[in-house]
Amino acid sequence: MPPEKGRPLSRRAWLTTTSGVIAAGVLKTQADAVKLVAQEPPPPDPTKVPGRLTSELGSRAPGEQPRRFLRASDLDLSSSSRSPLQDFHGIITPSDLHFERHHAGIPDIRKENHELLVHGMVERPMVFRMADLMRYPSVSRICFIECSGNGGGIYSRNRMPTEITVQQIDGLISTSEWTGVPLAWILREVGVRPGASWLLAEGGDAAMLARSIPLEKAMDDAMLAYGQNGEAMRPEQGYPVRLLLPGWEGNAQVKWLRRLEVSDRPTMTREETSKYTDPLQGGRARQFSFVMDAKSVITFPSYPYALPDRGWWEIKGLAWTGRGLITRVEVSTDGGRNWADAELQHPILPKSTVRFRHLWNWDGREAVILSRATDETGYVQPTVHQLWEARGDGTSYHQNHQRAWKIASDGAVTFGLGELV
Amino acid sequence: MPPEKGRPLSRRAWLTTTSGVIAAGVLKTQADAVKLVAQEPPPPDPTKVPGRLTSELGSRAPGEQPRRFLRASDLDLSSSSRSPLQDFHGIITPSDLHFERHHAGIPDIRKENHELLVHGMVERPMVFRMADLMRYPSVSRICFIECSGNGGGIYSRNRMPTEITVQQIDGLISTSEWTGVPLAWILREVGVRPGASWLLAEGGDAAMLARSIPLEKAMDDAMLAYGQNGEAMRPEQGYPVRLLLPGWEGNAQVKWLRRLEVSDRPTMTREETSKYTDPLQGGRARQFSFVMDAKSVITFPSYPYALPDRGWWEIKGLAWTGRGLITRVEVSTDGGRNWADAELQHPILPKSTVRFRHLWNWDGREAVILSRATDETGYVQPTVHQLWEARGDGTSYHQNHQRAWKIASDGAVTFGLGELV
Repeated sequence: MPPEKGRPLSRRAWLTTTSGVIAAGVLKTQADAVKLVAQEPPPPDPTKVPGRLTSELGSRAPGEQPRRFLRASDLDLSSSSRSPLQDFHGIITPSDLHFERHHAGIPDIRKENHELLVHGMVERPMVFRMADLMRYPSVSRICFIECSGNGGGIYSRNRMPTEITVQQIDGLISTSEWTGVPLAWILREVGVRPGASWLLAEGGDAAMLARSIPLEKAMDDAMLAYGQNGEAMRPEQGYPVRLLLPGWEGNAQVKWLRRLEVSDRPTMTREETSKYTDPLQGGRARQFSFVMDAKSVITFPSYPYALPDRGWWEIKGLAWTGRGLITRVEVSTDGGRNWADAELQHPILPKSTVRFRHLWNWDGREAVILSRATDETGYVQPTVHQLWEARGDGTSYHQNHQRAWKIASDGAVTFGLGELV
Repeated sequence: MPPEKGRPLSRRAWLTTTSGVIAAGVLKTQADAVKLVAQEPPPPDPTKVPGRLTSELGSRAPGEQPRRFLRASDLDLSSSSRSPLQDFHGIITPSDLHFERHHAGIPDIRKENHELLVHGMVERPMVFRMADLMRYPSVSRICFIECSGNGGGIYSRNRMPTEITVQQIDGLISTSEWTGVPLAWILREVGVRPGASWLLAEGGDAAMLARSIPLEKAMDDAMLAYGQNGEAMRPEQGYPVRLLLPGWEGNAQVKWLRRLEVSDRPTMTREETSKYTDPLQGGRARQFSFVMDAKSVITFPSYPYALPDRGWWEIKGLAWTGRGLITRVEVSTDGGRNWADAELQHPILPKSTVRFRHLWNWDGREAVILSRATDETGYVQPTVHQLWEARGDGTSYHQNHQRAWKIASDGAVTFGLGELV
């Protein structure tokens, strides 16, 4: 156990601390520093005054107001917002803080009017209303969704932001309990014809975003999801129904799903030709690079936090892989020279974020901390140099390389790229 | 697969249904009937108009507005509100819909000012601020919390409500991913003295609710929880820190925790003498009946829904036990004479709600449906007669007997008690 936790009790200390006196050092931990700047006078002793009554809908504590992050360029129809990873405990993302990525805004769809057409190379083309879909037996699973462009801002060889938060860099990932109907059951209902191998999924937004999905994935763990974290899916995540492809890039998990067309080839839509394809060196490109490879990010300590003093600190973060289970996360506190196994925190679920933590005794000197994840296939999260070497620097997607934070001797934390710091 | 799902496609049908015409029968499923009564004109074709922009905080779809249920008597300081179990998918309860039970309202506590005193039979009495507690390594687990008074309204031999919802009966249970510090670590930090066997947990609300907890549980899986479903705990659930005792009655999981006193005996507080003790027949009483026994409830079909027509329907519900894993849920559709195993839906976690489902081909005749849960200790959810026999009818707590719903020949659903229907 870290020895400096808590404080031995004296009657005097107890009286002093309950009066509201706050030691400056303690407040610089985690989110406290920022949030306490505009602190109001404390409310009266809560044991002496009656509290607030029950209500039909709860609300957050006044001092706990996490928010998604929007860039200036996100005030547009094609835009995104990022989840506050640094504020999270556990693995579930509260639904109102799930990241967004829309290509034509969030459509206003009523469940009663929405229909899903399933046609193409099938025996019985059918239209499903939501009441039809919801009458099927449901399944539920906890998994992450990550935009394949997540982290894109830190891949350039020329630009290296340092004063940037984990939310700004990697906030395009969220984890929910999703509920819905296995797509395989619907495809069996309509009867897929021999020779079929792909399907086109089309969204009901103004972008009518469309992606080609291999039939093999559709028959494996794909879901027509309508539930998110226990209740109806939020409009931003595809209400009333989205395609859920556990472990695959977010763009392919078409939201506001209105059409599935079974075919014997990919449709070559805009979103899989001019976009969401990874240029490689030598004029080639990776297409249909659906799976999100193993990745990890440290959420504490991270910019703009500062460690108030040396001693035991817990390095915390999230790891995930689209290929199944995270089996190992290692942490380095010396810029990548030495690595130690971090603890993985339960629940450890396939294709879900997993929380890791590592106790570190900071000696007060400058340090560079990194994490790297390994998944059940043996894949190890690469360095940025390995990724540049394998793929060049022209791609905007799947940048899952190791991230690093630099701790200055005064405790200030800034972003870096491991070996480059 | 149920054969009547979906509808075969004709060009004419596709055009007609997209125009907004709605078949009355379909709407009576699940929550649609109630919600569509006041339906507005449908919004314009979402593929033709730009959508809403991204935002810092998301919101629910206009047609999806689940709410906690408050009785008239809940407009009081000692009150409760109930989770809308019938609206939920999966197992997680959205935090703003977690049930409430307060004895003096919800105190207004700021994290910066809150302190937890740990004293009594310990080597080093200590005061912990939240920044201290949050510096400890954290753990996370998904588990339910249930008020031991849940379902109390249906236990009387004399009163049998029939037009009552599952939310009104059993809405005092919710499931969250909780994050915090194992209590055992804090107790090791202060050094529990030999001979200690209990601790007193005291809340920081105006009721200063206090309960005695066996040290054995405190050293097992008890947690000082500050995170709920990925973010800071909500004020209604004990912000900034509560005692989490997985599988035990809600009342003992003291919210707004401000004091833990280690002792060699229970303190015999009001909440474990005049309340939260179960009178038995013959003048005796069960005291310290902490563990919530195995229980299950059917959430669909349930009052006030109606089945619009005969055929395949999925009976769905939730089961849980404070003793570990639910191993089996059985469903009867003939008033308890015959039972069939329901499917348990993943994730199946110890001391968590588990979703069960059972496909049922309703022949259109009057039927009584029930569920009963079995846990890993072999305990089987009793009938109300078994519970009356074992405990008499004078207790207000731990009424985990089987619940039933009666389906009339017109599809209308009302509540019952199995053999009594």
